[in-house]
Amino acid sequence: MPQASPPRPFLSLILGGARSGKSRTAEARITSLPPPWIYLATSEPRDDEMAARIAQHRDRRGEGWITREEPIDIVAVMDDAPPGVPMLIDCLTLWLTNVMLAEYDVSGECDRLITRLEANDRPVVIVSNEVGLGIVPDNALARAFRDQAGLINQRVAAVADEVIMVAAGLPLKLK
Amino acid sequence: MPQASPPRPFLSLILGGARSGKSRTAEARITSLPPPWIYLATSEPRDDEMAARIAQHRDRRGEGWITREEPIDIVAVMDDAPPGVPMLIDCLTLWLTNVMLAEYDVSGECDRLITRLEANDRPVVIVSNEVGLGIVPDNALARAFRDQAGLINQRVAAVADEVIMVAAGLPLKLK
Amino acid sequence: MPQASPPRPFLSLILGGARSGKSRTAEARITSLPPPWIYLATSEPRDDEMAARIAQHRDRRGEGWITREEPIDIVAVMDDAPPGVPMLIDCLTLWLTNVMLAEYDVSGECDRLITRLEANDRPVVIVSNEVGLGIVPDNALARAFRDQAGLINQRVAAVADEVIMVAAGLPLKLK
Repeated sequence: MPQASPPRPFLSLILGGARSGKSRTAEARITSLPPPWIYLATSEPRDDEMAARIAQHRDRRGEGWITREEPIDIVAVMDDAPPGVPMLIDCLTLWLTNVMLAEYDVSGECDRLITRLEANDRPVVIVSNEVGLGIVPDNALARAFRDQAGLINQRVAAVADEVIMVAAGLPLKLK
Repeated sequence: MPQASPPRPFLSLILGGARSGKSRTAEARITSLPPPWIYLATSEPRDDEMAARIAQHRDRRGEGWITREEPIDIVAVMDDAPPGVPMLIDCLTLWLTNVMLAEYDVSGECDRLITRLEANDRPVVIVSNEVGLGIVPDNALARAFRDQAGLINQRVAAVADEVIMVAAGLPLKLK
Repeated sequence: MPQASPPRPFLSLILGGARSGKSRTAEARITSLPPPWIYLATSEPRDDEMAARIAQHRDRRGEGWITREEPIDIVAVMDDAPPGVPMLIDCLTLWLTNVMLAEYDVSGECDRLITRLEANDRPVVIVSNEVGLGIVPDNALARAFRDQAGLINQRVAAVADEVIMVAAGLPLKLK
């Protein structure tokens, strides 16, 4: 007798602006599940400012976290990590920045990520920035980045079970 | 015996950032009504980047659409179009850009548009950008544009029957 | 017999972008209470553009308002003002700008403000800008400002009884 396939684990997208409290909101989502939790950091400490911010985020997280650092190939980290363990990906916008700076095929990498998320085998919470609500940037690279950031947010939102916008530390449920 | 005037047709404002999915949301609103539908494009293909985007939008729309292109005098297009046919105006922010670049009287043109919308005789969905949620721009022209964009959004929202903010492709009802 | 302490008066935070209608929304909140009302303006007319905007805001307010202008020490104004009189603080983002330009201790001033708000003895409505939803600014000062603006919004939101985001003149309740 064929068995029903188990439901796909929970996928949540946490959107917000700079210093909106989105990382904190995402951490609270993940830590409502039993530990351990995987923290997948996509940031690379390119300068002192960024290194300080990464250290600050790490200090805020406590026991129970396994940290993985990967600027680009987050699909490989998802493949390699012990199955079932909840994962927080922080953040999609920096991942996109890294993919674009390394001159990878943006569209191909986005397809690959979405395919992996559709076959998701663990609870995943993804943090991403909303960057499209200001004045049109002067330079073409910033405009291209803004477009890609908006597109990947739309695509992840489409496959997510939950989408939350965070402002001033407060959640607003979009899906 | 005096007759009651018929109810004014539906007016909807769809707000969102760059690549938020606002055009797609607006198209879905319009195409829930029977065809044909008028697509009033306010964009002018000033460079290759913009031409590519316009072509992409046009390809996504299918049968049933009548396209009108008018960068500035959208009131005239509303006056001339066959009555009752639903119209999608995409977008208000580019229209404002065109009005300002052509050095028309911004305040007068905004008054004219609002007056026309108040006497609206067809279902209309208007797409507009929210551009005021970033850092204050360096130059005075960008600040003036940002102010005017915010003001016209407020004025259209005040006369609209429905206002929807779109983020990551997901609608959030404001009115 | 010990008496129960009276409930702390209402504290509201009104967030929004440029020309989103946040000041108007905040004024409507305050004027729903009986007059007089204190308008605490944190803006300094540094140039003609800003002077024009301040004058425009003042003209819109009518009878019943007591105006206080203080770019930095808003805690002192709260201490000195007649107790119980409702106060509108417009706006937190300009206050932060002033504190940073004057090279005061930002963190200390923010702590002082939050402590004062926690011991709030009058209805207070605070207007603040959301500035973190655009592309990352090029220069480090703008990034630092954006971070501080996001943090103080989070902190005020945490102690507020009500937080409203305004877009196109329409309120969206976050708390």
